[in-house]
Amino acid sequence: MNDLPSFSALVDSFSKLPGVGAKSAERMAYSVLEMDEDDAIAFSDAIKNVKTRISRCPKCGLFQEDGECEVCSDIGRNHDVCIVVAQPRDALAFEKLNDFKGVYHVLGGVLSPTKGVGPEELKIDELLNRIEEEGIKELIIATNPNMDGETTALFIAKLLEGKNVAVTRLAYGLPMGASLDYADTLTLGKALEGRRKL
Amino acid sequence: MNDLPSFSALVDSFSKLPGVGAKSAERMAYSVLEMDEDDAIAFSDAIKNVKTRISRCPKCGLFQEDGECEVCSDIGRNHDVCIVVAQPRDALAFEKLNDFKGVYHVLGGVLSPTKGVGPEELKIDELLNRIEEEGIKELIIATNPNMDGETTALFIAKLLEGKNVAVTRLAYGLPMGASLDYADTLTLGKALEGRRKL
Repeated sequence: MNDLPSFSALVDSFSKLPGVGAKSAERMAYSVLEMDEDDAIAFSDAIKNVKTRISRCPKCGLFQEDGECEVCSDIGRNHDVCIVVAQPRDALAFEKLNDFKGVYHVLGGVLSPTKGVGPEELKIDELLNRIEEEGIKELIIATNPNMDGETTALFIAKLLEGKNVAVTRLAYGLPMGASLDYADTLTLGKALEGRRKL
Repeated sequence: MNDLPSFSALVDSFSKLPGVGAKSAERMAYSVLEMDEDDAIAFSDAIKNVKTRISRCPKCGLFQEDGECEVCSDIGRNHDVCIVVAQPRDALAFEKLNDFKGVYHVLGGVLSPTKGVGPEELKIDELLNRIEEEGIKELIIATNPNMDGETTALFIAKLLEGKNVAVTRLAYGLPMGASLDYADTLTLGKALEGRRKL
């Protein structure tokens, strides 16, 4: 039982996934052992397919399957409005809203002096080019609401000062369903600052 | 982004694993997307290998790789003492102890009148045969300490009454490091009942 090389290899692979410790990796490997043959083959193939079929859109940086970005190639979308995100998965959150019909631009990270990430490491030049070429009219900067996300948003806004493009930022405030006495002071401060007329 | 069939297929596969919800499955699939090519191929192969190379030992029921059970085939082990477990993974827990040098017998479950599992569904006849043929002298019944596990243990003990084999059960009591005020009454009762002289 201690010496099943195939099993150990699978446990190793599972434990490389985010949030999976040694114990869960083992439980997952067991469940593969007990899985239907068909399900296991589908699983194995799915991993290979994801790596071979999915690439990044050279324009916006989102993931695309079989070489076509479904956002960039969709003429039904509004190519004048662009949400700027750090990672492709952030764009997915907006897609799930099913409300935003503009396009995206993936920076590939955020500025972080402490981690040595400068503007050259991000797709900022590409963003400026797209604004020029595609005539983007509004840029909604949707980096995370933390120090590095803020710095990045301000940096981009500064770069575009005086240009013919509106730069906006997501609203800060209390999350829906939150309770006032659990809100942290920073959030509460932002909620107060950003108050709106009813 | 919503329409990446390979990605969705992988999310589906991940969400079939125990303890993996929709959100974690998605996070795992993302990490495969961002994984090294080599790691992804190793992962995919590991799943296939586990299904093709690992089988169950026809004698004890443990998992074996490439057709040889490392416990049953080990002449250095004591074949007179046998731990009876419900599932192969229970045996692994004992193997990790690195202390038990006997053999195992996997029942493939426990008796459960409510779930319709009777003695025919379990490898109980096979166990009786092994006791006969291999001359097993002690049977340590290590089914889980719950209703069905207890029933199964008592059922096997009853079957072997008068036979030339000692049937024992794991000790019940407080787990090491536990605190008395958090112990449930059943466990505490068992700990008191099973008290030992110092």
